Amino acid sequence: MTDILGGQKRTVYCGLVDKSFVGQQISVMGWVNRRRDLGSLIFLQVRDRTGLLQVVFDDAVEKDVAEKASQLKLEYVIAVTGTVRMRTEGNVNPDMKTGEVELVGEQLKILSIADTPPFSIGDEKAGEMLRLKYRYLDLRRESLQNNLITRSKICHVVRNYFDENGFIEVETPFLGKSTPEGARDYLVPSRVHPGDFYALPQSPQMYKQLLMIGGIDRYYQIAKCFRDEDLRANRQPEFTQIDLEMSFVDNEEDVMSIAEGMVKRVFSEIKGVDLGDFPKMTYSVAMEKYGSDKPDLRFGMEICEIGNVMKDSGFVVFDNCLNANGFVKGIVLKGHASDLSRKDLDKLVEFVKTYKAKGLAWYGLTQDGVKSSFAKNLSQEKQDALVAHLGLEVGDIALIVADTNYETTVVSLGALRCELASKFNLIPKDTYAVTWIVDFPLFEYSEEESRWTAKHHPFTSPKNEDLPYIKSEPGRCRAKAYDLVINGDEMGGGSMRIYNRDVQKLMFEAIGLSDEQINDRFGFFVNAFNYGTPPHGGLSFGLDRLVMVLCGTDNIKETIAFPKIQNASCLMCGAPADVDQKQLDDLAIGIIKND
Amino acid sequence: MTDILGGQKRTVYCGLVDKSFVGQQISVMGWVNRRRDLGSLIFLQVRDRTGLLQVVFDDAVEKDVAEKASQLKLEYVIAVTGTVRMRTEGNVNPDMKTGEVELVGEQLKILSIADTPPFSIGDEKAGEMLRLKYRYLDLRRESLQNNLITRSKICHVVRNYFDENGFIEVETPFLGKSTPEGARDYLVPSRVHPGDFYALPQSPQMYKQLLMIGGIDRYYQIAKCFRDEDLRANRQPEFTQIDLEMSFVDNEEDVMSIAEGMVKRVFSEIKGVDLGDFPKMTYSVAMEKYGSDKPDLRFGMEICEIGNVMKDSGFVVFDNCLNANGFVKGIVLKGHASDLSRKDLDKLVEFVKTYKAKGLAWYGLTQDGVKSSFAKNLSQEKQDALVAHLGLEVGDIALIVADTNYETTVVSLGALRCELASKFNLIPKDTYAVTWIVDFPLFEYSEEESRWTAKHHPFTSPKNEDLPYIKSEPGRCRAKAYDLVINGDEMGGGSMRIYNRDVQKLMFEAIGLSDEQINDRFGFFVNAFNYGTPPHGGLSFGLDRLVMVLCGTDNIKETIAFPKIQNASCLMCGAPADVDQKQLDDLAIGIIKND
Repeated sequence: MTDILGGQKRTVYCGLVDKSFVGQQISVMGWVNRRRDLGSLIFLQVRDRTGLLQVVFDDAVEKDVAEKASQLKLEYVIAVTGTVRMRTEGNVNPDMKTGEVELVGEQLKILSIADTPPFSIGDEKAGEMLRLKYRYLDLRRESLQNNLITRSKICHVVRNYFDENGFIEVETPFLGKSTPEGARDYLVPSRVHPGDFYALPQSPQMYKQLLMIGGIDRYYQIAKCFRDEDLRANRQPEFTQIDLEMSFVDNEEDVMSIAEGMVKRVFSEIKGVDLGDFPKMTYSVAMEKYGSDKPDLRFGMEICEIGNVMKDSGFVVFDNCLNANGFVKGIVLKGHASDLSRKDLDKLVEFVKTYKAKGLAWYGLTQDGVKSSFAKNLSQEKQDALVAHLGLEVGDIALIVADTNYETTVVSLGALRCELASKFNLIPKDTYAVTWIVDFPLFEYSEEESRWTAKHHPFTSPKNEDLPYIKSEPGRCRAKAYDLVINGDEMGGGSMRIYNRDVQKLMFEAIGLSDEQINDRFGFFVNAFNYGTPPHGGLSFGLDRLVMVLCGTDNIKETIAFPKIQNASCLMCGAPADVDQKQLDDLAIGIIKND
Repeated sequence: MTDILGGQKRTVYCGLVDKSFVGQQISVMGWVNRRRDLGSLIFLQVRDRTGLLQVVFDDAVEKDVAEKASQLKLEYVIAVTGTVRMRTEGNVNPDMKTGEVELVGEQLKILSIADTPPFSIGDEKAGEMLRLKYRYLDLRRESLQNNLITRSKICHVVRNYFDENGFIEVETPFLGKSTPEGARDYLVPSRVHPGDFYALPQSPQMYKQLLMIGGIDRYYQIAKCFRDEDLRANRQPEFTQIDLEMSFVDNEEDVMSIAEGMVKRVFSEIKGVDLGDFPKMTYSVAMEKYGSDKPDLRFGMEICEIGNVMKDSGFVVFDNCLNANGFVKGIVLKGHASDLSRKDLDKLVEFVKTYKAKGLAWYGLTQDGVKSSFAKNLSQEKQDALVAHLGLEVGDIALIVADTNYETTVVSLGALRCELASKFNLIPKDTYAVTWIVDFPLFEYSEEESRWTAKHHPFTSPKNEDLPYIKSEPGRCRAKAYDLVINGDEMGGGSMRIYNRDVQKLMFEAIGLSDEQINDRFGFFVNAFNYGTPPHGGLSFGLDRLVMVLCGTDNIKETIAFPKIQNASCLMCGAPADVDQKQLDDLAIGIIKND
């Protein structure tokens, strides 16, 4: 039934055959993608990594070849030798890369037969769960293959860039120690040390800082990281970071410019896009204007301050809020006032409530006049002032949140902004809006623990000028931290690290850690800083996210060869699965049943 | 006490300063490596990743700088700005890369102070355990840094090579499924699926074959792999493989030539060494001549057949062995007959016994005549025949094993060969003896299970010409498998895979697996082969081993940034360690105490 190659070689990939091959004898190998049997003529599409090629067996072909060709079914693996010719004019297929030519088959080998696949190869409408179970078949889909090829290219560009810039690639361990801070660790029981566990790394953070203490000077790695969290959409339990750290820098600019260079290089080489210099936006401006520390700058609709014009408005909701030193802010949706029905608006009220806002007010101008939830409470003068302040024209509608909590006000409006942009297709395609977010707060107050905690981690360096306020006014201290945001997604982030032990001590005191707690939680790591630590800082990018942006997909599974589903299992191989009792005995662990 | 950089930049690395910098003002940053205070003159060595630079503070320097310089201690981190000058003739240090010049310090910043380190940086005589505990300090050692730099370079060369050859880098999962074959898996308990476990990959074998079924065509990856084995020297629980697989090939040559190209490129770019074309040696020749499937070809001393000349020798040990269809073989140590004392020889007898040989006979020619354990049993004629057969000259000694088991005979002699080469320094330095070992047996007989088992794995393709013998004479079947051996170490190995379901069925039958067992053990993987599998094969290299050879070290820990010791623990971070009960509760596992 099946042949073997017997020394025959592929001379060219299917997708690369074009006019320049006409008249040449070639051999291609791949999968039968389509098959049409017209009796005296058999048409095939042969598929490989590069694309499709039409193959014809006509009645000039030898009888045993014709016989074999007539046996072919979809997804059979074959080798065809033949001569390339132009297609006749009526048969040219402009939608196909190789649509001008076809291969006249002379020899045919069936390398491998195939059962009928459980779904049509390349059919994205086949259920995702089914395609994930047969991932090795879905991997034959052109778009998925192209994503993996792009991912590989991105990694290659990234590595070349760091290599050129004097970074050393260092592998850090996977079997490390569990740290009580951060997300939940994946644990690995030790057989040699019964009762003890390794932890898979959530990031190479400690190791890369130790490499700086060890004098490696410039480090990078494309590293797998692990977080055992309840997965949201577009999260994977194992994910990949582009990770870097460099020494003898104490200014954010030094790290940011290296990182920026990398991202620009990737976009230039992968997409042919020049991103230009990346603008910087402070955290406080991002929150004020976009209600988010990862603002999508592909569209406007910035948050406006309205409290000033709405002072003593007569609308009790605003007045009470402002009298309590609260905030009244809004966004203006241009040109769609009439497109928002009362039902739509009610939905938006519910939407902002999921962001803790108490309600949503609106004020729009339509052909039919004012459309507002509160205009009746306002004098004409106040209404005119509002219209003038917001620059409202007919067709525009302002959506307003009033709240005593600043964060609630801007965050709910920021979310609403994105919701409306998506609803009304205000986001231009194929544009990349890039920005650095800088000057993050150093601390955040934990209501739960009634204390200040480190917003990033306790090794993040404060801004030099905020050092005096670490103990007295933690809330005013900013960190030497930076995030890179593209199209409203955080692509990466990092910080300059504390390398001075006095500053580190201040920092620990500010978040209320005792010496014992410090030793317990960070032990050997803190000790390492006592032996001569260079100033250093770094950054890490989420590779999966970067690939998503560059491939134009919003499904992270489309960028990974063998992804897991939301419950952290692999539908293809069935992991996680039960194991032999002997394996558990070896590890001195048992399963605790909760019936 | 400490300064911050305040915008000051390093202008050059220490080790790169040479004559061309004389007269220039530069800034260097690094660690105080040495310090000599002569009162009016303070000499420092400053160290960074590239090497050392001598810095002088003389009495022309400003007072506060002199004051700061006098406070410096070893391993303080400093920034020095000054002007480069030639050293005076008597002070030139030819052992130092920058020994012709020195930096006359003008400004000095102390970036970070340091406690007295627990050992002298760079002192390899400090206990390895102590150095591993403070790995971040041992990482400042030049030789270790250079090894890590070489490792990074090797990876870069490897990736460029595969990229140029159309290979796609694909990341395969770390959280996979435990497979009952092979070594012991590291397990990862699942929180979301209580009682179920992931396994860390022992290799990406199944995934890469699935990528071929998925049409990726050419895959490579530099991948971390895990084996929970009792560690021998130079093994690590986590290790790194250069892994590749390619489709539409069915001949070992196709894969071997790609792999050979990679190794040649690495040696050429890293060491400037042209390895030439790699010779091939069959498994049976390697066993016959060197008693090993990873022969060290840097020296001769091949195993000789002696049975023919020793037939009816009169020496009962040989005669009995030969009459039982056994083997008498030996090696000749040239020129050292007199250097082996009776005590040495007794030790060698014990040595071969650890390889299951029953004993060791010897026959040497010294200035004082024959020196032999069995000559007294032999006629002069037989002795002359032996001397002639082996080409023994005065000074030479033959060491002979007689055994009814072929493998015991050659393996014990092969080990003895290496032992003697090492003892008498017969192995030339800085040479690379490379060979492919091919035509491995497809099966090996398991005495324990009284059945034939797959020598590599059951997906390894048999040689085409041996297909007819799979069921009738498994022992005669050879595999399309190949190993690359350099200097007696296996650098890598691989095989062509079975892609034909009939052959796969034959193979499973030969090793006595029922359909149920096949499904149990290989389930979804075997099923994947039913949907159109291209002929494919691959190979993987041990990166750690390759780095060892290229760095000239025989300690694997010298090639890894944060290695583990033989009991699989990390002396630096203390992994594995106990974890909070809460973490175990989350995972629904408990520790079983065996008191």
